[in-house]
Amino acid sequence: MSAPLKLGLAGLGTVGISALERLLSMENELAVKTSRGIRVQAVSARNRNKDRGVDLSGLDWYSDPVEMATSDKIDVFVELIGGDTGAAEDAVRAAIMAGKHVITANKALLAKHGNELARLAEEHNVSINFEAAVAGGIPVIKAIRESLTSNDITRVYGILNGTCNYILTRMEDEGLSFEACLKDAQDLGYAEADPSFDIEGNDTAHKLSILSSLAFGHEIDADSIFLEGITSITSADIAAARELGYRIKLLGVAQKTDTGIEQRVHPTMVPLDSAIAQIDGVTNAVAIEGDAIGMITLSGPGAGGEATASAVLADIVDIARGLEVKPLGLPASLLEPYRPAAMRAHEGGYYIRLRVIDEPGVFASIANRMAQQCISLESIVQRKAKYKVEQKSEMITANKKPQDLVLITYETTEFAIRTAIESIVSDGHVVASPQVIRIERL
Amino acid sequence: MSAPLKLGLAGLGTVGISALERLLSMENELAVKTSRGIRVQAVSARNRNKDRGVDLSGLDWYSDPVEMATSDKIDVFVELIGGDTGAAEDAVRAAIMAGKHVITANKALLAKHGNELARLAEEHNVSINFEAAVAGGIPVIKAIRESLTSNDITRVYGILNGTCNYILTRMEDEGLSFEACLKDAQDLGYAEADPSFDIEGNDTAHKLSILSSLAFGHEIDADSIFLEGITSITSADIAAARELGYRIKLLGVAQKTDTGIEQRVHPTMVPLDSAIAQIDGVTNAVAIEGDAIGMITLSGPGAGGEATASAVLADIVDIARGLEVKPLGLPASLLEPYRPAAMRAHEGGYYIRLRVIDEPGVFASIANRMAQQCISLESIVQRKAKYKVEQKSEMITANKKPQDLVLITYETTEFAIRTAIESIVSDGHVVASPQVIRIERL
Repeated sequence: MSAPLKLGLAGLGTVGISALERLLSMENELAVKTSRGIRVQAVSARNRNKDRGVDLSGLDWYSDPVEMATSDKIDVFVELIGGDTGAAEDAVRAAIMAGKHVITANKALLAKHGNELARLAEEHNVSINFEAAVAGGIPVIKAIRESLTSNDITRVYGILNGTCNYILTRMEDEGLSFEACLKDAQDLGYAEADPSFDIEGNDTAHKLSILSSLAFGHEIDADSIFLEGITSITSADIAAARELGYRIKLLGVAQKTDTGIEQRVHPTMVPLDSAIAQIDGVTNAVAIEGDAIGMITLSGPGAGGEATASAVLADIVDIARGLEVKPLGLPASLLEPYRPAAMRAHEGGYYIRLRVIDEPGVFASIANRMAQQCISLESIVQRKAKYKVEQKSEMITANKKPQDLVLITYETTEFAIRTAIESIVSDGHVVASPQVIRIERL
Repeated sequence: MSAPLKLGLAGLGTVGISALERLLSMENELAVKTSRGIRVQAVSARNRNKDRGVDLSGLDWYSDPVEMATSDKIDVFVELIGGDTGAAEDAVRAAIMAGKHVITANKALLAKHGNELARLAEEHNVSINFEAAVAGGIPVIKAIRESLTSNDITRVYGILNGTCNYILTRMEDEGLSFEACLKDAQDLGYAEADPSFDIEGNDTAHKLSILSSLAFGHEIDADSIFLEGITSITSADIAAARELGYRIKLLGVAQKTDTGIEQRVHPTMVPLDSAIAQIDGVTNAVAIEGDAIGMITLSGPGAGGEATASAVLADIVDIARGLEVKPLGLPASLLEPYRPAAMRAHEGGYYIRLRVIDEPGVFASIANRMAQQCISLESIVQRKAKYKVEQKSEMITANKKPQDLVLITYETTEFAIRTAIESIVSDGHVVASPQVIRIERL
C-alpha cells in the first residue's frame, strides 16, 4: 500500500462539513477501496472558533487557505470556499503551482478561469477534479470525460439549476405565480435572498460552459452563452404549454450545428412525454447524445451538502486510485477556441404568446407577418380554447378585451421569428411584450 | 508519453467489430486524451476468412484466444467472445495469469466466475473492467464502483433487459398478447430464436448479481437470486395495472433489508409517475439509492454494437489513464459471502389477479382469507369496473362466467400473500392459476 494521500480541505460550509465528516468516518473503508490511506491532514476556514459540530482538534488549522495549499504536508487541495476570485482562486492557483492535485466544487471559478487553470495543472502534472461543480451528486463530469470519451457528442442538455426547476414545477402543479413560488423557494432555502444569479440563468450558464467544453473540446467560454432567465414566465405560459403537450423547463443546451457550437440557456418547451419533462422540483438531469450511445440521461440531486460531498469524495478516490485525466478531457493546448453558432441561425419550433385586442383583422395581420417569414403554424390557442390551424380564423370571435393568442410554429429560425415579431409589434396590435419560448426537439 | 497500450481483441461479432472500428479510427484522438498511444495489436476469432468489412491485415491474427491472451505483444485482453465457459473463460483466466488487464462485456462469465476472477486479478495486480457487461452504454459500473463509493447504498434497481422491456411496452401500447410481441421482437432482432434466457429473467439476474456485489460488498451469487420471468404476464394484467396507476416492468432489485440483501428479478408494478415507468422499448435504466446522494437514475441503450463498444472503449481509456480499481470495488478477500434475505420476509404491496366464478359468497370467502393473514386491501377491480374497498361487496354482482378479480394490497409480506393464496386456491373458488405481481415502492 502506498503512502496515504493527505488532504487539505478549505471551506467548512455545508458541503465542506459533509465532506469532512464522511472522510473522517470512512477512513478505513476508503483505504480498503483505494489500496491507499486517505487522510484529512488540514482544514482552513475563516473562523476557527465557530462550532461546526465536528472535532477538528486532530487536524492542522490554517486561517489562510493559500498557506495550506502550498504546505508540504498535503498532497491534495480540496477547494470548497466558492467564488470566482479571491481566496478560492488564489489558493487553487497556489496549490497547482505547488504540485498539489485540486478538487473543487466551484463552477464559477471554472467558468471564469477554467482554461488557464487546466493549462497550469498540466504544466505541473496535477489533476483538477470537479464532479461536484456540475449537477451536484450526479456523475456527469465522469460520464463525459471518461465514459463517453470515444463518442462524437452532438448535444448535451439539462436541468442544471434546482431553484429554477423548483419554481417552474410549483407554478405548474399549483397554478401559482412566479413571484409566489420564488418566495416559497426562498423560505425553504432553495433560493438565495438575492436570487438573480439562479433565476436569470447565470448559474446554469456556468455549468453549461463546463459541460460544453468537455463534450466538444473547446475552451470554456461562459460569457458567450445566450442567456434568458425564467422571470418572464407566467402562469398563462405554463398553462398554455401544458394544453399544447409541453412543459416549460429552464434548460442549458450545448449543441453542435453546421455553423459552430450553440450554447444557450433559456426557458424551453419540452414534450410532456420526454424524460426531461418528468424531472420535478430541485432535481437535476443531464442528457448526452453521442454517435455511439445514442442518448443517455442522468438524473439526481443537483445540490445539497451530502450529495455534493459524495461527488467530492469520488474525486478524491479517483486520485487515490491513480486516475490521470486532463482537467478538460483534452490537453488544454488542443482545446479549440469557442466558435459560437450565431443565435439568429438557431433552428427550432417556437411558442409565441401575444397579448392582443382581438378586433377583426388582427389575426389575419399576424398570420400574414408570420407567412412573410415563411413560418408555418402548427397550432393556435386563444384563451383556453384550442383551435387547429386548419380551422377558419373567423371562428376566433371578436372581443375588445385583451386576449392571449398563443402560436406554436413548426421548425423555423430565430432570425425569422425575431423579424416576424418586430413587424407584428410595429403593426400595433399587441398590447404587451410578446413572449417567445423555444421548443426543443427531444 | 508512455509506451502505447497494446490491445488484443477476442471476438469479432457485432460488439467486437464496432469496438475495433472505433479503436482504429480514433487512434490519434485516444492518444491525445490519454497521453498514451492505444493500439490494437491483435485480434482473435474463429474464422479468419469471413468478410467483416474491416481491414485486419495490419493486425496479428490468432485463431486461439488463449494464445493471444498470453502473448507478450499485448498489455490488455479484450474479451468479446461471450459465454460463461469455454474459450471466454479460458482466455480471460490465461490473460490474468499472464499479467494482462482484462476488459469484458461478458455478464454470464462474471455472474458465474466473477469472484474467482477478481481474486486472480488482484493476485496478478491487473484490472478487470466490465462496464459493457451491465446495461450496455450506460456507465452504471463506474457510477457504483467510482462515483458512489462513499455512499452507504440501500437499493439498486433497474430495467436491465431490453427484450423484456420492449415486449412489455408493446403489450401496453398496442394491447397485444405476450406471444405476439415476442414474435415481433424476434423478427426485429431484439429477441433470440430461443428467448428463454431473456424472458425468464436469467439475463437480468446475471446483471443484477454484479450490481448487487458492487453496491453491497458481497460476493457475486447469481444462483441465489429470486427469479420470475414475464411469460405469465397477460394483457389483462397490463390493462389492470394501468387502470390502477401502475405499469408492469421486469425489474432487477437488490435491496438492503434487516435480514440480509434481497436480490430479486420479477415483473413489478411501478407507479405510472415514477422515472422507471417512463423507460420504454429496449432502453435500460438503473436507479441507485444511497445515504449521501438520495437517488440517481441513469438511462440509455442497454445493448447494441455501438453503445456496447462505447463502454468497452471507456474501459480501455481508464486503463490507459492509470486507474487502478479492484474488480469488485473492494478487495475480493474482503467481500462478504452473500447473505440472502429470505424471500418470504419480503415486504411490499401486491397485485393479485384471481379468475373466479363469481357466485355469491366467493368474494367474502376471498376477503376472509386475506383478513386471516392481516392483509389489507387498497383497491379491488372486477373486469373493467373499479370498486373501492369501502364499497359493499354485494355491489359485485353474481355472474356464472369466470371473471377476473384484481386486488391491490397494502404493505404486507410475501409469506402472508403466499399463505392467503394457498387457502384461496384450496377453497376451490379460482379456476386458473392466481397471478401475483409485486409492487415496488419508488
